[in-house]
Amino acid sequence: MAPLYEAVPPGRYGGTERVIATLCDGLVAAGHDVTLFAAATSCTDAKLEAFVPEPLREVMDADGLAEIAPQLHLQMLADVVRGGDSFDVVHSHLDLWTLPFSRVSSVPMVMTMHGRLDLEAVRQILPRYPAMPLVSISDNQRLPLADLSLNWAATVYNGLDLRSYADARHDQHGYLAFVGRISEEKGPLLAIEIAERTGLPLKMAAKVDPSDQEYHDEEVAPRMGDGVDFIGEIDEEQKPDFYAGARATLFPSDWPEPFGLVMIESLAAGTPVIALRRGSVPEVIEHGVTGFICDDVDEMTEAAGHVGDLDPEECRRHAQNFSAEVMCGRYLDVYGALERP
Amino acid sequence: MAPLYEAVPPGRYGGTERVIATLCDGLVAAGHDVTLFAAATSCTDAKLEAFVPEPLREVMDADGLAEIAPQLHLQMLADVVRGGDSFDVVHSHLDLWTLPFSRVSSVPMVMTMHGRLDLEAVRQILPRYPAMPLVSISDNQRLPLADLSLNWAATVYNGLDLRSYADARHDQHGYLAFVGRISEEKGPLLAIEIAERTGLPLKMAAKVDPSDQEYHDEEVAPRMGDGVDFIGEIDEEQKPDFYAGARATLFPSDWPEPFGLVMIESLAAGTPVIALRRGSVPEVIEHGVTGFICDDVDEMTEAAGHVGDLDPEECRRHAQNFSAEVMCGRYLDVYGALERP
Repeated sequence: MAPLYEAVPPGRYGGTERVIATLCDGLVAAGHDVTLFAAATSCTDAKLEAFVPEPLREVMDADGLAEIAPQLHLQMLADVVRGGDSFDVVHSHLDLWTLPFSRVSSVPMVMTMHGRLDLEAVRQILPRYPAMPLVSISDNQRLPLADLSLNWAATVYNGLDLRSYADARHDQHGYLAFVGRISEEKGPLLAIEIAERTGLPLKMAAKVDPSDQEYHDEEVAPRMGDGVDFIGEIDEEQKPDFYAGARATLFPSDWPEPFGLVMIESLAAGTPVIALRRGSVPEVIEHGVTGFICDDVDEMTEAAGHVGDLDPEECRRHAQNFSAEVMCGRYLDVYGALERP
Repeated sequence: MAPLYEAVPPGRYGGTERVIATLCDGLVAAGHDVTLFAAATSCTDAKLEAFVPEPLREVMDADGLAEIAPQLHLQMLADVVRGGDSFDVVHSHLDLWTLPFSRVSSVPMVMTMHGRLDLEAVRQILPRYPAMPLVSISDNQRLPLADLSLNWAATVYNGLDLRSYADARHDQHGYLAFVGRISEEKGPLLAIEIAERTGLPLKMAAKVDPSDQEYHDEEVAPRMGDGVDFIGEIDEEQKPDFYAGARATLFPSDWPEPFGLVMIESLAAGTPVIALRRGSVPEVIEHGVTGFICDDVDEMTEAAGHVGDLDPEECRRHAQNFSAEVMCGRYLDVYGALERP
């Protein structure tokens, strides 16, 4: 069960929906019978049950997303639970809305937490369902809830379809890359500072949400030029070459990122990652082998001078640990261990 | 199932919770076995299943009410539906959150709509559950949804426990009364204008919510004095004498009020009502008998000179149509007609 905000996979930005797409296709490839509940414009090897004609973010304003979207997700949950006997397992990616239906489901349910967990609503509500099997996408993600009694079934790292990266050829003399979304917590200004201090060119391939437009216009855009280029959002087809053309990907995310697909995509192209020590970073990057884990912008700047010492093949090798196949295998282990309600 | 925001009955203002309290006690008095799911500080003749220790509005800020309160109501619904076999009927007052659980309940469910229905979320979501039995609290309340195919089971007017009004003695030479909540749509400024134009004293017994404090301070408070008194919120024990001491109750509510308990309380004390023609008013007041239904403030002002012509006993008689017993009888009819899912 996927969020209805974006298609699965999403047109462009949207980590959760991309991972769900990879998981569905991977499970089908492994011979499993999978039904995906999602927006109708989704594209999947699974059987698609289209719950809404278009992704909600394309057809609703902020009020609709706040007031109507939760009700649609709840109805989808009710429909699936009502017809649950036709499934062996229900895997929900619908966050807290999933929980009440776990109490009335005749089929085992499991939910993956894709977001940050240091939120008051999460702290208050999750422990009310101590039996609900939960999957974290990094061990670090669970830390804010370490004092609570919860039923963590596993950490399953997000997986990437590595096939599209097979032909990417890493350029050790390329630019610095920044990929993702322009917002303060993602650290775009730190990336620019590193480029300025090293004199290396920086290419920023990033989405600007309406809520971040002012930040982009006032803080980020004025610092373009002099080797710093903003190229906007890129799609999946453009990504392998974009990462491969970089000597290193900067991951200056300054909040506890639960996972960070950007790091895996970069490694898959053979490009090491220079990251701040936050969230999942130490679980994904091997310091001195597939990138550098830094405590501040000074260390990141210095690291930019050493990425040429790292072996691109080590990066590609390590990306195999975050493949679609590995993720699907881990989820199959989780499904197999679930107990019937 | 009652909302968890206030106790049942509420300490002071809170129409929905008051009606639920009256319904529970009335059904128990009629010999039925009733379980009330509500906050622990509720007081009822039914069996109380306390879902939270304190009413949510007493312990949560706006963020908590927006993000955590829905989750608590959903969990309560899940718990009741899960244990539903011990009930003949589940009657929910939890608004749209109820709907998805109607799809997974083995017990008949019915929900009363207490709020206004001209909201986009209501329009979008209600028709997705065309079989859900709905109760409106006035015929007028349904109007914004007249074009939709919905399963309206009945209109059941809110009922009042008339016993506490038995000793109230109407004073035909008393003041004008305004009771309720200070906010623009309730028309407090119209009430003040009528008092000023008639020269009659006005007593305003009203709650001021934090969100309405600025409106109260800037628009209403400066117009006190010269026979216009603001006496703040009053409790149920004070109400009979307060209404009885008024020659008329003003009900200048300038929005489509779904019901309006104030009108019934006034009639129960023998005091006629001068009201704007909005929402449920024409269903509750008999023009020229138990009050006056007016199209504007001019008509309301003129009507204030004629309320002495009305018979207080007619008001008390008409209030009998909105008694606890009548409401309970109608709900029992609704329950009896529900089909098993």
